[in-house]
Amino acid sequence: MLIGAIDGGGTKVLTAVLTETGQILARRQAAAPTADVPGYFRQCAEMLAACAGEAGCGVFSLAGVGMNIPGMVTPDGYVLGSPSADWGRFDARPLLSTALGIASERVFFENDINACALAEQRFGGAGGDFVWITVSTGNGGAVVANGRLARGGGGCAGEFGHLKVERDKPYPCGCGGMGCLEAHASGVAIARRAREAGLPDGTDARKCEELARQGNAAALAVYDQTGVYLGRALAIAANLLNPSHAFIGGGVSKALDLMLPGISRTLSAEAVPQCAGLEVLRTRLGYEAALLGAGAVCLEGLR
Amino acid sequence: MLIGAIDGGGTKVLTAVLTETGQILARRQAAAPTADVPGYFRQCAEMLAACAGEAGCGVFSLAGVGMNIPGMVTPDGYVLGSPSADWGRFDARPLLSTALGIASERVFFENDINACALAEQRFGGAGGDFVWITVSTGNGGAVVANGRLARGGGGCAGEFGHLKVERDKPYPCGCGGMGCLEAHASGVAIARRAREAGLPDGTDARKCEELARQGNAAALAVYDQTGVYLGRALAIAANLLNPSHAFIGGGVSKALDLMLPGISRTLSAEAVPQCAGLEVLRTRLGYEAALLGAGAVCLEGLR
Repeated sequence: MLIGAIDGGGTKVLTAVLTETGQILARRQAAAPTADVPGYFRQCAEMLAACAGEAGCGVFSLAGVGMNIPGMVTPDGYVLGSPSADWGRFDARPLLSTALGIASERVFFENDINACALAEQRFGGAGGDFVWITVSTGNGGAVVANGRLARGGGGCAGEFGHLKVERDKPYPCGCGGMGCLEAHASGVAIARRAREAGLPDGTDARKCEELARQGNAAALAVYDQTGVYLGRALAIAANLLNPSHAFIGGGVSKALDLMLPGISRTLSAEAVPQCAGLEVLRTRLGYEAALLGAGAVCLEGLR
Repeated sequence: MLIGAIDGGGTKVLTAVLTETGQILARRQAAAPTADVPGYFRQCAEMLAACAGEAGCGVFSLAGVGMNIPGMVTPDGYVLGSPSADWGRFDARPLLSTALGIASERVFFENDINACALAEQRFGGAGGDFVWITVSTGNGGAVVANGRLARGGGGCAGEFGHLKVERDKPYPCGCGGMGCLEAHASGVAIARRAREAGLPDGTDARKCEELARQGNAAALAVYDQTGVYLGRALAIAANLLNPSHAFIGGGVSKALDLMLPGISRTLSAEAVPQCAGLEVLRTRLGYEAALLGAGAVCLEGLR
């Protein structure tokens, strides 16, 4: 069985044809403007068709197609909004199924971070209860409780990025709130703290990581403090849900080793002892987590 | 079908014989010393036998017996510890089944707050995803995700009492941490704030409620601030789990109306808009929530 995967992002799209064990047979990546919504879905369909051609099959012979939306979406494809793509509400299912020329029953949708958690479960070997946290430009997350993705009453569970992790010196968040995880532990927040710490102008999260690895004390402190904030969010998850694992993904997760001391200290201090044993790992799926996630979404939908 | 329910507390025990729809046919309540563990379980068994006699049946004819433990316990009755009963680890199942003289397959165990959530679901009509928070001497909680009680990898999910809700002026908690919900929104914390607000010596949560209802501004402020702290914990649950309801139980929940303004303001400020619609209600099960919970535990176990 071959399946199609579309990781729709706010600035770029990845598509792939996968086997049901997660082997990528063909892959495309391209920038994708989101302003013309039908055009965006046509581009996704064309990229996936090219992958199918390369894999030696047609889109028609795919068992189904899973697509990630960079925002809130119902399982049947109704987009509720995406800040990163600047989308409001619309029905994505007919747009995608028409563009692909396949039946709407064979296309499935999910929030991109939820998709990462599903991929971790299906292709990464994660069992039991766990949380997934992205550390990238922003912060997002997903919760797996009782072995199943937790969606909540309104389908919006997993908003790790807006947990309040700082009340003493809170920084304003893009959401309008104060002290959110995203305002303190995102790539943007790392760059801001690097600037405040007197590191050279233009030091972003990646450059700050480089400096930390060269032993720069200020850069190391920036990552340690990021670990403290992530630890606060993880302690919340530990106390409420007692997951056995937390998987950290997103570009900044490459620096997880620099953040782990701060994470561990904070988990010890803020999670009750019986929940503090949470194992914090970098996702085993690397850069492809979300793309594999779209495949997992398809396989979930086909069940 | 008749079932037995034992709500084992750190200072008192309630027992009942119930129908499977939650009608209480007979009920006993007594103080119970916890130091002699086998003696405690013998007392529970004697009280339940007296209920069975009053209900016109023997303990033998009960379909099963559910028992709450005021601490951590595995579903098969291994107690992991109880601060309120000062218990360490022991196997409760043989103690109870021997004391009752019934097969160990017919006795079922659960943490007392988890039991309340199961009762809310089975007898209170709660559907979907919700959280349960106790406001009593301390604070505890339970999480229902995907319609099922979340236990977590180690069986210890739902530790609402130790979520950090204050970082600016945190108060030490009995757990050794700082700024826990229990240190700021429990009955004990209400009494402490009442004292700090200059209310008469010996003003406990109940007396503070009376004063608030008489219009005392300081007492009203104590309850409003308690609502703010509860709101912070509820906003965490809203962001992570997007539950449709939160049920508040425990003795202090009688004053929920005095706390709701603070809860609502805080939810609006700290939960993302799509999760902030969480409806906060007093439990519909009143004082019997935990006792009915033990009945629900039995019915879950018999499924």
